[in-house]
Amino acid sequence: MDQFSSVDFSKVDITGGFWADKQKLIRDVTIFSVRDRFADTGRFRAFEFDWTEGSDIPKPHIFWDSDIAKWMESAAFLLQKAPNDELQSQIEHIIDCIEQHQREDGYFNIYHTVVAPKERFRNRDHHELYCLGHLIEAGVAYFNATGRDRLLKLLERYIDLVIRVFCVEHSAGFMTPGHEEIELALFKLYRLRHDKKYLDLAMFFLNERGKKEENDIGWCKSNYNQSHLPVREQREAMGHSVRACYLYSAMADAAKETGDKALLEACRALFDDITRKKMYLTGGIGSSHMGEAFTLPYDLPNDTAYAETCASIALSMFADRMKEIDLDSKYADTVERELYNGVLAGLSLDGKAFFYENPLEINLPDRARHTSVNDSERLPITQRLEVFDCSCCPPNVTRYYAALGSSVFSAGADAILVNQFANCSADIGGAKLRMETNYPLDGTIRLTLTGAKGKRLLIRVPGWCKKSAFSAPHTMQRGYAAFNIDSNSFTLCVEFEMVPTFVHAHPAVRADAGKAALMYGPLVYCLEKIDNKGALFDLIVDAGSTPELRFDAKFGANVITFRGTASSEDESAPLYSDGQSAARREVPVTFIPYYAFANRGETDMAVWIRAE
Amino acid sequence: MDQFSSVDFSKVDITGGFWADKQKLIRDVTIFSVRDRFADTGRFRAFEFDWTEGSDIPKPHIFWDSDIAKWMESAAFLLQKAPNDELQSQIEHIIDCIEQHQREDGYFNIYHTVVAPKERFRNRDHHELYCLGHLIEAGVAYFNATGRDRLLKLLERYIDLVIRVFCVEHSAGFMTPGHEEIELALFKLYRLRHDKKYLDLAMFFLNERGKKEENDIGWCKSNYNQSHLPVREQREAMGHSVRACYLYSAMADAAKETGDKALLEACRALFDDITRKKMYLTGGIGSSHMGEAFTLPYDLPNDTAYAETCASIALSMFADRMKEIDLDSKYADTVERELYNGVLAGLSLDGKAFFYENPLEINLPDRARHTSVNDSERLPITQRLEVFDCSCCPPNVTRYYAALGSSVFSAGADAILVNQFANCSADIGGAKLRMETNYPLDGTIRLTLTGAKGKRLLIRVPGWCKKSAFSAPHTMQRGYAAFNIDSNSFTLCVEFEMVPTFVHAHPAVRADAGKAALMYGPLVYCLEKIDNKGALFDLIVDAGSTPELRFDAKFGANVITFRGTASSEDESAPLYSDGQSAARREVPVTFIPYYAFANRGETDMAVWIRAE
Repeated sequence: MDQFSSVDFSKVDITGGFWADKQKLIRDVTIFSVRDRFADTGRFRAFEFDWTEGSDIPKPHIFWDSDIAKWMESAAFLLQKAPNDELQSQIEHIIDCIEQHQREDGYFNIYHTVVAPKERFRNRDHHELYCLGHLIEAGVAYFNATGRDRLLKLLERYIDLVIRVFCVEHSAGFMTPGHEEIELALFKLYRLRHDKKYLDLAMFFLNERGKKEENDIGWCKSNYNQSHLPVREQREAMGHSVRACYLYSAMADAAKETGDKALLEACRALFDDITRKKMYLTGGIGSSHMGEAFTLPYDLPNDTAYAETCASIALSMFADRMKEIDLDSKYADTVERELYNGVLAGLSLDGKAFFYENPLEINLPDRARHTSVNDSERLPITQRLEVFDCSCCPPNVTRYYAALGSSVFSAGADAILVNQFANCSADIGGAKLRMETNYPLDGTIRLTLTGAKGKRLLIRVPGWCKKSAFSAPHTMQRGYAAFNIDSNSFTLCVEFEMVPTFVHAHPAVRADAGKAALMYGPLVYCLEKIDNKGALFDLIVDAGSTPELRFDAKFGANVITFRGTASSEDESAPLYSDGQSAARREVPVTFIPYYAFANRGETDMAVWIRAE
Repeated sequence: MDQFSSVDFSKVDITGGFWADKQKLIRDVTIFSVRDRFADTGRFRAFEFDWTEGSDIPKPHIFWDSDIAKWMESAAFLLQKAPNDELQSQIEHIIDCIEQHQREDGYFNIYHTVVAPKERFRNRDHHELYCLGHLIEAGVAYFNATGRDRLLKLLERYIDLVIRVFCVEHSAGFMTPGHEEIELALFKLYRLRHDKKYLDLAMFFLNERGKKEENDIGWCKSNYNQSHLPVREQREAMGHSVRACYLYSAMADAAKETGDKALLEACRALFDDITRKKMYLTGGIGSSHMGEAFTLPYDLPNDTAYAETCASIALSMFADRMKEIDLDSKYADTVERELYNGVLAGLSLDGKAFFYENPLEINLPDRARHTSVNDSERLPITQRLEVFDCSCCPPNVTRYYAALGSSVFSAGADAILVNQFANCSADIGGAKLRMETNYPLDGTIRLTLTGAKGKRLLIRVPGWCKKSAFSAPHTMQRGYAAFNIDSNSFTLCVEFEMVPTFVHAHPAVRADAGKAALMYGPLVYCLEKIDNKGALFDLIVDAGSTPELRFDAKFGANVITFRGTASSEDESAPLYSDGQSAARREVPVTFIPYYAFANRGETDMAVWIRAE
């Protein structure tokens, strides 16, 4: 088992370019917009006041603790990089509320305490341990940012209660959480506190899941929450896709901490099953709204794609952990796919609104036609919203991009790995690394590394890249270009040839048969009707053509669009024929990045275009 | 407007080969099987006994008169070609029942007379005029077969009542039938009796449909029954597809009888709209189970295809009428498509069972997956049944093939047209024509025509045929090869090159994107899993390849299958790539005629196969 550690974002400063712009947006707009919408909807008041039947504050939901926790974690990530009294005092205020409402025995949960006190630890689907997990992550982040551990200490009392109830007394109504999350949070806490009881509790929840005994106490053997098999026996990604990837992330953490080979093998198989059979081009996973779940291999419908933003984040988390225990560029390739597409589409360009579901096609005429059969309820919404009843995605996107620096580098005993590309400087165990690049606008990267003589530098060659050049000799190792650092000041120029390229899906993906999608480097492109004349779904592109690059002011800086040509079949073409139809009209088409879709009102959109 | 008349099947004897076999099946098996199932289900008893609440016979349905009428018409067609005391006495018995139950004023309708006497002519959707139409067709057929007009006379009294109620008193609750049929029946009766009142009544129903006045009396402006526009203004095929094509058939009859150019133009536009945008490769129409209706252009899903057998018959009827007023081979091409595919698939190889819906794909694993969202109720059944609650298709198939001789030839003032190809001899206005062929097993046809010197012989060159040869000089006229007959005994050898060919659908047909279907002459082929290893929907055919012809004993004589090769993508192939995948496995595949599918138990089936 390989052993690398991700370099924490606290050691990585993103200094300009594409990601600096996005982080500025998160810092200046998103964190406050999410906070204000959570305030509007009563989520903060639920921490401040005890809801009672008939009171004039909204009744808390079972997942509101996690909404606030993810917001706190996001704010803590921002505090880590720059002081902000407003955010810090708001976090302190929430901690006050938690302290005040925590029960004598350590229990804390907004919903159960005030709405259903008798159901404490009775209902596996009530998200208590999930909420605790997010609070732990917030506590760890806030401690890292400020050195203050008041929240952590409150939560440690709560965890002691959980250990007693679940591992000693076995008095809970279930054995493992209905929504995984606490497991990976416990690994974070264990790494901070080095107290083995947190590792033990995480391993307890992993080891008990899907065991016969668990099902014997009345919880159905459901793949919805990955309880169909003991985790080491799982090979196919199943069930609710966020739950699944949170579990797999914890399994990867566990493999790293314990060296458990059976867990590593399960993680490898699950990762490959997802990324080779169950993932949209954008990185979206969970193709069905039913159970927000994985379905069959290659079942990837574009118009009804569920592809929850949180699921993309979860897969990115899983992939980022896999790269720590299994050297292979496919993991960071998947993180990159999510960073630029699956997760990024979840956030509007103004930083205020979010998609929960991320379709790869919006066909408004087709929707109108299907309304009569209630297909409409299965179709994703077409415009982002600022808050949802189940508003897990907004704070998840916020914390994801606030801490994206953690995905860039990793380090082993004698190696430094460059997994993602951004304008940044980093301190990696004393070595200083500076990366200058316009990535993803082009593929030129200049690296300067000092204080790492005698180590090896591994640079991921992106999976999309067909031709790369380096200014120093290298060998290839599992998709990484490997360099021996022979001087105290090592400089390297990297060129990843970036050309717009049409890609095809595996022929078993029925939804994409006869279609192609444009990619430019890591970016997936799409067509929106607002930019294109005629019916989007009548267009046919030449998959061998190369659209022309344009910088396009309409989306601000750092956004590349492409101008290509497509043809449109004449209506007079025969319905069935054994040859090529003659009558075609050429039309210009404008491709925009997938992440930028749905920012100019409701309009048809397609990632996959009919192709020849 | 061109003017030709179809040569009635009474003048055409099919003497051997493919269609003689099918007609023998109809005569020996199907006519009796349909009768027995109708007897089992109480349809005959409903004519014999008056149902009353609590009686031990089943309550009649609103369309049972039409079921029995179509059975009588089928039996009369068989009587026309060969005496059969059993069939004739059964028809006479039914006529006795009708005579006995006919009301004083001429009214006759099983359902309304005994179940809902007060609703007589009140509910437009209650099929009274539809049932009368089928009875008229039965009466005409029985008179033609036997010279007996007792049934016709009973019905003529009923029609006089209809004329009084609808055209004189305007006392019915609606103005035109909710299900068209009586119109085309009235044209048949008019041509037999030459009484203008039948023409007038037919024209009344055509002219009133979709007029503002009609909608004013409370019937919604619905395209379900083609009442959205006056018939002469209709250009797009809409609504219930059987209703639609029965209406269009009557419109073509009217154009022929009256020379109405506006009707001709409407018929031409509607025919083209169907066959260029809304018809399956098999000839199936009405792609949605909702309203059994036409949907949008190019919306032709394969697995949920409705494609009712009766709708294929109706389109064939419409096309057969169009060929009488508009010389163009596309009409007889469409009849041929239905004869060999869309209608023929409706009948099992043993002649006893029927499909109501005719899917182009049966994907059992996919069905299993979708059961949870009630998609199952939208999916066609996978095995034929001997009778249905709504059993319109079985007697419709029976009468269609019993009289298929009427589709073969037509004649104008100086021309004889060969529209379909079958081993047969015919008397065409004194000229004798003999056709010898193994069609559709091969494309060789030998014609001998005597007594037609000075006329022209027009032979349809099938739309599927790329290369044809004739033993005499000819010119081409709207898809027909035209010959001047210069001797009293004219002999012609025709060769239509018949090679297995993969066809593609118009790129706007999303369901067929990236797929091809095998055709051999007029026959559409399919794959059934029972003949093929591995997963049917993983196979990829080379659309440029030529499968090898095999006579295959498993389906009896006159059935050709094809053996080809396909490849199956390796599971290890990447989910997304910009090039061809390397890892492929070659597998042999067996294609069977589409009409022969689902005769060996439930199994996956596909007409459209992934192709490259």
